[in-house]
Amino acid sequence: MKTNHSTLGLLTASVFAILFLMGCQNQDSEKDDEQQAIFPKGEPGPAQNFTGKAWALGLVNNDSTYQTVVGNVYFEPGARSNWHIHPAGQILIITAGVGYHQLKGQPRQTIKKGDVVQCPPNVMHWHGATPDSGLHQMYILPNTEKGIVKWLHPVSDEEYNTPNPGE
Amino acid sequence: MKTNHSTLGLLTASVFAILFLMGCQNQDSEKDDEQQAIFPKGEPGPAQNFTGKAWALGLVNNDSTYQTVVGNVYFEPGARSNWHIHPAGQILIITAGVGYHQLKGQPRQTIKKGDVVQCPPNVMHWHGATPDSGLHQMYILPNTEKGIVKWLHPVSDEEYNTPNPGE
Repeated sequence: MKTNHSTLGLLTASVFAILFLMGCQNQDSEKDDEQQAIFPKGEPGPAQNFTGKAWALGLVNNDSTYQTVVGNVYFEPGARSNWHIHPAGQILIITAGVGYHQLKGQPRQTIKKGDVVQCPPNVMHWHGATPDSGLHQMYILPNTEKGIVKWLHPVSDEEYNTPNPGE
Repeated sequence: MKTNHSTLGLLTASVFAILFLMGCQNQDSEKDDEQQAIFPKGEPGPAQNFTGKAWALGLVNNDSTYQTVVGNVYFEPGARSNWHIHPAGQILIITAGVGYHQLKGQPRQTIKKGDVVQCPPNVMHWHGATPDSGLHQMYILPNTEKGIVKWLHPVSDEEYNTPNPGE
């Protein structure tokens, strides 16, 4: 009976030790996802403009005062926009996660939290998450009197998966 | 001896149980501060334009392509900008913390993570942290061909501390 008590005590201690170590690690990763998101997800992006699941939230609508559209997009892992063009260019601010951005004719760039990405006017580009990580990005579309966006064709799996030899 | 073993085992289990519960809670608050900041602090804002400590990081410089300036400011608790004017207005995106924003002639507004704040062209305003919380904010200055900023006088303690009766 006394032997059973000491064994039980040691087993219990071991279980809590393991839980403690696991709990610290799990809290980090769970809190990461929750803390990283500044904005609610918003609405699903139109299926004809995205491959995979993307969620879009408008933050500043177009008007004559600022002539600037601002929004937030969350790309689930594997999701990306179609190729598209912005007549006045676009600025992306990556607020969480890891993703890709590619300008037509240039290698795919890996982008991550804290990065600022600029796409010049009238240059085809796409952006999205990596296969393994979601991407939270704000976008800024300036000078909307020149136009906002022209959506084009989807990004093929080959294009999406072609690595950048320089990375 | 056997009694000591079982007591030791139970004590050890209790210690790990307490550590587990404390560890979970402490990880949350420490990670909060670290995770909230998307960008490095940058450089101290010029003392003549701020009361208290503010840190500024440029993200997108002015140029003829985008005519949009983007940056990030971290206000330490109690810090605020002077009164100032933007000829083309300003858009603020609050990414972490709690702060204040006031347009001349209107009550002080409390602003927090996830808020989007717009200041119209040529309207005096100020913004900053609360006395108890820092504020992380991105700013967007559109249409820079109209001008960027005109700095004015400091925000007095009375102005800073006058509550909004509607909040």
